[in-house]
Amino acid sequence: MSQITSAHYGKSRIPVLKIVREQGRDCLFQALISIDTEGDDILSAYTAGDNRAILPTDTMKNLVYALALQYEISSSEDLARHLGREFLRRYPTITRLTVTVDEIAWARLEVPDPERGGRRAGPISFRQRGGEEDWARVVADRASLSIESGTRQLTLLKTTDSAFSGFLVDDFTTLAETEDRVLATSLRGSWRARDADLDYRALNAEVKATIVEVFAGFRSRSVQELAHAMATTVLGRCENVLEISLALPNLHCFLLDLSRFGLENRDTLYLPTDAPHGDLHVTIRR
Amino acid sequence: MSQITSAHYGKSRIPVLKIVREQGRDCLFQALISIDTEGDDILSAYTAGDNRAILPTDTMKNLVYALALQYEISSSEDLARHLGREFLRRYPTITRLTVTVDEIAWARLEVPDPERGGRRAGPISFRQRGGEEDWARVVADRASLSIESGTRQLTLLKTTDSAFSGFLVDDFTTLAETEDRVLATSLRGSWRARDADLDYRALNAEVKATIVEVFAGFRSRSVQELAHAMATTVLGRCENVLEISLALPNLHCFLLDLSRFGLENRDTLYLPTDAPHGDLHVTIRR
Amino acid sequence: MSQITSAHYGKSRIPVLKIVREQGRDCLFQALISIDTEGDDILSAYTAGDNRAILPTDTMKNLVYALALQYEISSSEDLARHLGREFLRRYPTITRLTVTVDEIAWARLEVPDPERGGRRAGPISFRQRGGEEDWARVVADRASLSIESGTRQLTLLKTTDSAFSGFLVDDFTTLAETEDRVLATSLRGSWRARDADLDYRALNAEVKATIVEVFAGFRSRSVQELAHAMATTVLGRCENVLEISLALPNLHCFLLDLSRFGLENRDTLYLPTDAPHGDLHVTIRR
Amino acid sequence: MSQITSAHYGKSRIPVLKIVREQGRDCLFQALISIDTEGDDILSAYTAGDNRAILPTDTMKNLVYALALQYEISSSEDLARHLGREFLRRYPTITRLTVTVDEIAWARLEVPDPERGGRRAGPISFRQRGGEEDWARVVADRASLSIESGTRQLTLLKTTDSAFSGFLVDDFTTLAETEDRVLATSLRGSWRARDADLDYRALNAEVKATIVEVFAGFRSRSVQELAHAMATTVLGRCENVLEISLALPNLHCFLLDLSRFGLENRDTLYLPTDAPHGDLHVTIRR
Repeated sequence: MSQITSAHYGKSRIPVLKIVREQGRDCLFQALISIDTEGDDILSAYTAGDNRAILPTDTMKNLVYALALQYEISSSEDLARHLGREFLRRYPTITRLTVTVDEIAWARLEVPDPERGGRRAGPISFRQRGGEEDWARVVADRASLSIESGTRQLTLLKTTDSAFSGFLVDDFTTLAETEDRVLATSLRGSWRARDADLDYRALNAEVKATIVEVFAGFRSRSVQELAHAMATTVLGRCENVLEISLALPNLHCFLLDLSRFGLENRDTLYLPTDAPHGDLHVTIRR
Repeated sequence: MSQITSAHYGKSRIPVLKIVREQGRDCLFQALISIDTEGDDILSAYTAGDNRAILPTDTMKNLVYALALQYEISSSEDLARHLGREFLRRYPTITRLTVTVDEIAWARLEVPDPERGGRRAGPISFRQRGGEEDWARVVADRASLSIESGTRQLTLLKTTDSAFSGFLVDDFTTLAETEDRVLATSLRGSWRARDADLDYRALNAEVKATIVEVFAGFRSRSVQELAHAMATTVLGRCENVLEISLALPNLHCFLLDLSRFGLENRDTLYLPTDAPHGDLHVTIRR
Repeated sequence: MSQITSAHYGKSRIPVLKIVREQGRDCLFQALISIDTEGDDILSAYTAGDNRAILPTDTMKNLVYALALQYEISSSEDLARHLGREFLRRYPTITRLTVTVDEIAWARLEVPDPERGGRRAGPISFRQRGGEEDWARVVADRASLSIESGTRQLTLLKTTDSAFSGFLVDDFTTLAETEDRVLATSLRGSWRARDADLDYRALNAEVKATIVEVFAGFRSRSVQELAHAMATTVLGRCENVLEISLALPNLHCFLLDLSRFGLENRDTLYLPTDAPHGDLHVTIRR
Repeated sequence: MSQITSAHYGKSRIPVLKIVREQGRDCLFQALISIDTEGDDILSAYTAGDNRAILPTDTMKNLVYALALQYEISSSEDLARHLGREFLRRYPTITRLTVTVDEIAWARLEVPDPERGGRRAGPISFRQRGGEEDWARVVADRASLSIESGTRQLTLLKTTDSAFSGFLVDDFTTLAETEDRVLATSLRGSWRARDADLDYRALNAEVKATIVEVFAGFRSRSVQELAHAMATTVLGRCENVLEISLALPNLHCFLLDLSRFGLENRDTLYLPTDAPHGDLHVTIRR
């Protein structure tokens, strides 16, 4: 005998671009939105081909578009929460759902300012921001709702103020201890925030600025210590963050040995690599 | 006050190519191997910069190479299990670890057979297989060990024998019911097998063949029903599989409407899309 | 003063899936089709915003669909040629155009054969082939038409029968000479064939089989020599091939030195890398 | 009889990270460098396995590292030119070579300024810039040297001030004429500059700023007209640019029709797509 222990389905990566056209200053929101649903009534579709409780993923897409048009979006988080609530409200067969919003961020182009001279943020033209990619995720059921935010591809490097020594040494150790190395990482982070009337966009900016500030200012003895300092500083500063997870892959930069060519390479020329790489994950909660 | 709720680290994507050179018939194994470790002793590295219990990820890489050289590899699963056991045996600070083996599969090139005529599998030359990507993962602690196998990018299409009708209809429904559609998916699957003296390579081949066979032969009323049929058939046939998870993203193929150009398109020309896509996940255990 | 020295535009990556439904045996053709056009009349669109000669790329897409529906496709090459001819015939403003067909290849799933026992190719179910990616390109103007075919990601490895020695040595040489190395490449090739009533699908299969056969059988003294042998053998065998270009990036496999750990690694365990890599291109014509 | 019509080889994607450590302010340069060489003497390696004139690509890599260490890098262009000259000077067998530098750009992190308050650019910490990717290419032989610079993934969007109407209409036209559409593109550009004692980094910044400024300010009647305006404005402003090529793939944003759900979507909610896409290329020289 076998039993279903997990079953969920939905629509992934619905592309949305919304332009709020205000007098002389348009606003842009672009994202890929994914809906994933669970519900006991749906199980007979799996086991007996009975589709009566199946909400087609095409319908999910339509509803996402309808809601995205009507809702005044202030952040990915509040859009995700609104979508989650609306799906639960409309469809009693859904017991639990996850809404993920992967934002594609834009920055305003600067244009000449004819009135004051110089340049100012333009009203209608944008460039895709590049750099880190932000996302939000809401998981909701009939009793509770949780909000998670995150970022990835936040790639940082510092040229000094990073040590790694005093570690376990055995027959397979070839790494030299160092009090001063180049440290680079392509950081991923996620954090759970309170479900409240918050400015999640501002909160996320504060979390990311804190991570970057700790990276720049903290003299670490290991990536472990650095990640811990980042996470605890965020929890110390941002009271609306309940829990934070960080992953710091170590993008190793190896000093090149050019002595065979009669050249002294004093902490100058490095071989940056991304595979294989050290990988570090930590989760800290309040 | 804050507390660490999860902390783990390791070396990711260690590239390995092993050639077992036998008389006139070399064998090839290529993979990216990742090691991830947990251990209570390591927590002072996070909180106090005390590195004494840290096993550098560079050392992990070295040990993986040493073990991969010496071990007679018969499958990704048994290599992963061997690595897991050896890491636990050597390092008492590790309480739990995960070994992931992402195989890069090769197939023998055919060469002319001078003795019997025709062609035969060549002894020294290979082509990268393409198609689905297989992986194995072992999670082990001091008390238990679990083995999971998986595949991804197993992309399948059938031109008929797939229906989707009788689903929930409401104001946001635009999808038409159909008794006959094109069905395509880029399947991902994973399955937990017994930890025993098994030929995991053969087991995985049987699981994948079963999935493909159900895809080809089953007239489904939904992707949900198809996935359920695949999973239960695998559990029915492969007694060493304890649990199986399948994800079937629906690579929609939309019939193109060319009537504006005076052309009748009778189930012939389709627009294949991959975003957005329906997405379906099911896990079934014995 | 400035002048336009080149101007062309078109529609890129039009997704097409065609199912020819025959009695009990459906046939599948999937590709991404790109159209690129040139024409002197269009220049005033660039310089003066005069759009009268612009064929919208949306219209190009529509015509590709109409033609793909009606045309009996036997190969990417003959489809590309047909599209090229039809665009030139319909639009006198186009002086030159390029049609590119990137095929997404499928293979039939095997199914049980109830009549004879065993297994046979199934009539309605397919798996995406994986492995190398084939393409065709036709460049046509009012006076001439050329047909090019190609492949990429044809990844090959041989465990022996490859040497590299006797090369130029100077102060910056660190590579050791070797009479026996592992050779791996992810080959790209393209070849111009005659414009005639040919079975291009069969021709391409013969070209690729020849490349693979030379790889498997030829003891090379360099990648250069290997590439030359591949190209000249193709020209020798396939009289309809006028010219062939090959690119063989060298996917280096470095023997790992594990002597520090007391282990002898005799041509067994390698570190495969893809960056940086040696890269070799050669074009040979009849 | 067959003949070699083209043969070249080299080392691709050599990863380089250089840190110039100055008092309290380190500078960073990261790039992937590719060397490609041609030379008549090498042809016997292809045809006869005679390797005497082959410079191993491993040696090329070593020389790139030696030169990158010693050379004071002010831009990708001057580094590429220096590498080109040095390779030609040292190796008489090389008749022509191409050096490509794909920069991985970093921006300084801001840190608190304890002296003046506020924030200032930090001395040792950086973030990867994201956004467009810049490259430089030098092609040199014994008689001449040309310098090309370029960028890709410069993704721009404007919400209005873009028209497309008055185009050719026929039986396959379905696109509606519009005086006001959303225009988005992921621009690629390349430009040949004079070989002189120039600040190429500043020149490239000016070219890119000009492209962006035209995008923001120009009311276009087609992508063709927009690209032409960009290119001619660059040539008008930057006298050291001899020729410029632009490619503007049209990332279509389709207004969603939500009228079936009783919703009016007035230029607000769009479906952004990237396949298929219109694609436009223009080259203009002085």
